[in-house]
Amino acid sequence: MRLIRYWHGGAARTGLVQDDRVIDTAALSPSLADLGAALAADGRRALATLSVASVASTSLADAALLPPLATGARLFCIGLNYKTHVAETGRDLPAQPSVFTRTAESVVGAGAPMLRPAVSEHFDFEGELAVVIGTPGHRITEASAMSHIGGYTCFNDGSLRDFQKFSVTAGKNFDASGAIGPWIVTADEIPDPTALVLATRLNGVEVQRSGTDMLIYPLPRLISYISQFAALRAGDVIATGTPAGVGARRVPPLWMKPGDVVEVDISGIGVLRNPIAAAA
Amino acid sequence: MRLIRYWHGGAARTGLVQDDRVIDTAALSPSLADLGAALAADGRRALATLSVASVASTSLADAALLPPLATGARLFCIGLNYKTHVAETGRDLPAQPSVFTRTAESVVGAGAPMLRPAVSEHFDFEGELAVVIGTPGHRITEASAMSHIGGYTCFNDGSLRDFQKFSVTAGKNFDASGAIGPWIVTADEIPDPTALVLATRLNGVEVQRSGTDMLIYPLPRLISYISQFAALRAGDVIATGTPAGVGARRVPPLWMKPGDVVEVDISGIGVLRNPIAAAA
Repeated sequence: MRLIRYWHGGAARTGLVQDDRVIDTAALSPSLADLGAALAADGRRALATLSVASVASTSLADAALLPPLATGARLFCIGLNYKTHVAETGRDLPAQPSVFTRTAESVVGAGAPMLRPAVSEHFDFEGELAVVIGTPGHRITEASAMSHIGGYTCFNDGSLRDFQKFSVTAGKNFDASGAIGPWIVTADEIPDPTALVLATRLNGVEVQRSGTDMLIYPLPRLISYISQFAALRAGDVIATGTPAGVGARRVPPLWMKPGDVVEVDISGIGVLRNPIAAAA
Repeated sequence: MRLIRYWHGGAARTGLVQDDRVIDTAALSPSLADLGAALAADGRRALATLSVASVASTSLADAALLPPLATGARLFCIGLNYKTHVAETGRDLPAQPSVFTRTAESVVGAGAPMLRPAVSEHFDFEGELAVVIGTPGHRITEASAMSHIGGYTCFNDGSLRDFQKFSVTAGKNFDASGAIGPWIVTADEIPDPTALVLATRLNGVEVQRSGTDMLIYPLPRLISYISQFAALRAGDVIATGTPAGVGARRVPPLWMKPGDVVEVDISGIGVLRNPIAAAA
């Protein structure tokens, strides 16, 4: 199943995508109105079994996609998690997963412009696989971690490099500087998340490509590690890091600029496509 | 005025403290139910002029204090912002403000236990002055920054040092490992926030003391800097960093342990007191 958040009829809604149609999950069951509830094991079971034939739907093309974030969802992000990217930065391999957070305000949904702020031109892309929690958990063991995943989505960890060099949080938290989506593909459709291919394209030219088997800290380790400090809830997101090819490490550097189009394409999930615009 | 969030009658409420009584701001005006609305310039004006004489109040002693956080409030924290603390860590002075974030789940209100997790005994205190935004703003100038402050409160940036050394976000985001409160003192009552004295006590023994005039990056610079990347809203919190005296830099180290009581005391604001307990 593919789950989205979208804007329709003057309200933000959670949607179940079927081919080119969207069904409002609240119309299926009021208890499924929040994306977190839909992602929980019960929610996914209900969505897979409820009859949608008699429920009104809208065209996916008419749905303005929002970031697929549950109410109160947190964005935990992992730095330096592909050897190829660590190598291009010239840094040491991290001795533990390197974690930072992004605010919900720092990301947009598919199709919405990612904003380059006026204060920096060093606006870089980072294509990433993101895991979305389905089953809540605290101090999750690596052995059980995969059962806590509700689904997967694409993530663009857009970064202002000249701010990031002073503090990661500043460089990674400009409003609307990142993107997530277009939808969450539920875990049942991705039996092996290490077998995916991630590619990032800028104006149609491929700039990053990697198998998701190349993570330094694999998904069970990341979920277990973060859940040691934060009790994870349905809808929480873990962005798993980016492979080599970022713009900052090219000669000359390759920055995203207004008018560009950036895509994060992950096999089995979809394409997260965003235009770049100047912040107003 | 002193504003709190508290639990009473089965619900979380925003309260105006008058001596030893609390008045539910929603009873004064439904539009003041959220702490952010109460902190906005309009809200503070209304609270200062509304007649509270005929409104029911409860005893402050009966109000379980919650973190004074508005709905959706973000916690921006500043590291390395007192020269005395930078010196004890042996690090360089930061070339720009060093920013990280804490989740709302990582802090408790006054009186609630701060939790030492099972995975670490390196649980340290950090007493801090926190600024709470009242007037929203994006790309705020330093010259106008002070007018965006709605109030001030005490902050304990509780840190698990052996996690922090691998990533700041991990060490600073254990659930219930920090504290904020007991209340927000509105900005009108603190004409000069650089003239306050901050003291931290562990089991009654003073472990940190500094004037708030010793910040490396003063309040206008912090507000202006953060608002370059995030449009600030009423209720957003900026914790301004801790002075020298942290437990990690003592010989031998001084860690907080279950049974301890930690206090952050700021003149003109109040005392944020929390027992330490073991996480369940």
